[in-house]
Amino acid sequence: MAQASEPVRHTGMREHNLSLVLGAIVRHGSVTRARAAELTGLTKTTVSGLVAALTEAGFVAPADARADADGPGARGERSGRGPGRPGAPVAVSGARHAGLGLAVDADGLSAFVLDLHGTARAHEVVVRDNRTRAPDAVAAELGDLARRMLDRAGAQGLTAAGLALALPGLVDRRGGDGRTVLRFAPNLGWRNVAPDALLAAHLPPLRLPPETGNEANFAALAERWSGVGAGLGDYIHVSAEVGIGAGLIIGGELFRGTHGLAGELGHCLVEPDGALCGCGSRGCLEQYASIDAMLRAAGSDVAEPTAAALLAALTAGRPTALAAVERAGRAVGAALVSAINLLDLDAVVLGGGYVPLAPWLSGPVRDALARGPGRLRGTAPHLAVSTLGRYAPARGAAGSVVRRLLADPALVI
Amino acid sequence: MAQASEPVRHTGMREHNLSLVLGAIVRHGSVTRARAAELTGLTKTTVSGLVAALTEAGFVAPADARADADGPGARGERSGRGPGRPGAPVAVSGARHAGLGLAVDADGLSAFVLDLHGTARAHEVVVRDNRTRAPDAVAAELGDLARRMLDRAGAQGLTAAGLALALPGLVDRRGGDGRTVLRFAPNLGWRNVAPDALLAAHLPPLRLPPETGNEANFAALAERWSGVGAGLGDYIHVSAEVGIGAGLIIGGELFRGTHGLAGELGHCLVEPDGALCGCGSRGCLEQYASIDAMLRAAGSDVAEPTAAALLAALTAGRPTALAAVERAGRAVGAALVSAINLLDLDAVVLGGGYVPLAPWLSGPVRDALARGPGRLRGTAPHLAVSTLGRYAPARGAAGSVVRRLLADPALVI
Repeated sequence: MAQASEPVRHTGMREHNLSLVLGAIVRHGSVTRARAAELTGLTKTTVSGLVAALTEAGFVAPADARADADGPGARGERSGRGPGRPGAPVAVSGARHAGLGLAVDADGLSAFVLDLHGTARAHEVVVRDNRTRAPDAVAAELGDLARRMLDRAGAQGLTAAGLALALPGLVDRRGGDGRTVLRFAPNLGWRNVAPDALLAAHLPPLRLPPETGNEANFAALAERWSGVGAGLGDYIHVSAEVGIGAGLIIGGELFRGTHGLAGELGHCLVEPDGALCGCGSRGCLEQYASIDAMLRAAGSDVAEPTAAALLAALTAGRPTALAAVERAGRAVGAALVSAINLLDLDAVVLGGGYVPLAPWLSGPVRDALARGPGRLRGTAPHLAVSTLGRYAPARGAAGSVVRRLLADPALVI
Repeated sequence: MAQASEPVRHTGMREHNLSLVLGAIVRHGSVTRARAAELTGLTKTTVSGLVAALTEAGFVAPADARADADGPGARGERSGRGPGRPGAPVAVSGARHAGLGLAVDADGLSAFVLDLHGTARAHEVVVRDNRTRAPDAVAAELGDLARRMLDRAGAQGLTAAGLALALPGLVDRRGGDGRTVLRFAPNLGWRNVAPDALLAAHLPPLRLPPETGNEANFAALAERWSGVGAGLGDYIHVSAEVGIGAGLIIGGELFRGTHGLAGELGHCLVEPDGALCGCGSRGCLEQYASIDAMLRAAGSDVAEPTAAALLAALTAGRPTALAAVERAGRAVGAALVSAINLLDLDAVVLGGGYVPLAPWLSGPVRDALARGPGRLRGTAPHLAVSTLGRYAPARGAAGSVVRRLLADPALVI
């Protein structure tokens, strides 16, 4: 319990007030110092000092100059309005700080850089079969990718304050000392890997400690922050590559579960005594509706075992491929019915590898949603298709860094 | 936003302070006025006034007299300690206020009265086939049951401040004006029933407005408050009668979902293209693992279609009955695997109609939990069996009234 006689921690209060003022600017878009004082309940003098610090640190900039901060007009407008005056509005600046998002999946690595406006500033995919690679080798290549992204950000005047890493497995927050453990990534074959140690060994050190999370969770957040998820109520974002990942957005927030293990839709059981899964169960959704499972089921209708070849076979109307994807759609629909009934969800977003397949998958999924949940709930859950594609996990990871930074600018001031 | 010039609402502050003081007494068991002042930050004079009001209203009583408040020793001990002195401890009194819980299911009605200590003071079951009865007829009989319970409570000096009703269906909180709608109760055949209107027409009016909720949710809460759920982390409580109900306890609280529709484990899909369910889907768990489904599958091994006859057949080792329950156990296990993987649960509680069947059901359920979730999570989720039996929903409903009352005693002061 806090004691009344405890001295006030001025640094703590300043950190808190920096967050308050930046928070008001984030929420209201463009505010004067006077308005920021009203919104925060702080004095105008205090706000002016804090805005000066935030400006100096590159978090905010005069609002009029924002749109073309890098352009020729910026300087003129700044001097014209007098940025130090309480009447001159300030807004979040996208010119200095960035978040770096990284993602590893069975098929490669990806990276995304977002500025504080949430604008994409750089991205890259490295196609690589990670299914048989050791964590150390993947982390070393991730380090190279990260350094390239930091260089590209730097060339635009941006500094990445931190990075977040999206992994295709169960990232358990019970690792002790606040550290995470990648308990199991079935499609990488990794077990009990400590991401923090890997990142410390291979990634460039940044101001903020790195964050690790499940790729599907980051994708679901990216959808909420800059995709189709913004207008949906509670939803599940489900995507497929080699495996299946899902993230739950409930009440506008990621539902992680107490140990950070929630959202494993791929291991919902859809077939009694079905195919044995890497997790130990039989009949997991992943055995029927991952891209790999669809490729296996499509057999010789698909020229080579790639998502592109599957898409070509579907477009050409090859019957075994069509049947494979139809069946996958029914399996996804069944797992989603379970998820909706358990979690009271309003909507579903198909993402990642499901996006190009959506014309074939959506029908059976929509049928399943309309049948039981539609009748039980009075209205069928909404079905949406992601517009973020391959980069959703890395974009969500970058967004997570940006959110952290905007919530607590003192981390880098 | 609150304005600084707004006058302080003294009644609001007194209500708040009554809650504060009673809350401290609830949490700490038995406290002196001086200790209550420390715990709440209020002055001793204020606390003394509030404790006097709480005593007068029957919420608290001198702690020494609590154990035998109804017995002959009470008066003597009270006068001996001087209950008005700041040094005399007070505790929650179980002698005056009660909560009435009611439950309707396909097989009957039940009622439970709890005092403020959470002690059972009266309960009753009315066995009745409600599957073809109109809501009005059931509510009329519920009214008779409620009046009997209030009489039995009254004979013990207890007044029920409010009642809560547990219903076997989707109780939707989107009814408008804060009212609920029973959207669909498949096993009663009820659709879009307004419980508040039914209760107003047939139930005796009490001080608090009645509350309506899903029976499985109330059962899960009862398990948390006074059953095996107290020591488990996040869990799902699953029970079966004619249908299957489940309630989710996450972070110590009921997870209702945004619209109050969460936890519908019975409509998780466990069999592709399986039996058609009342909800519109095919292959819902309820079609394989409700008591009715097990009775159907046990065929002539069971002398008559009752849970007791099923139990007798299992005990006698009748093979078709054993196979039916074994299959049900595998189906329950499959649905639970999906729930655990989606929600990151630590444990499962088998309740209601599953309790007597647990010796036969537990094996296949435990196998399913150990296989996938055990490997994915590093440790298998815990499996527990309820000790509350048939009364869990009504007991949870009564507990909900008691919780509401203890959280805001001003509701009846």
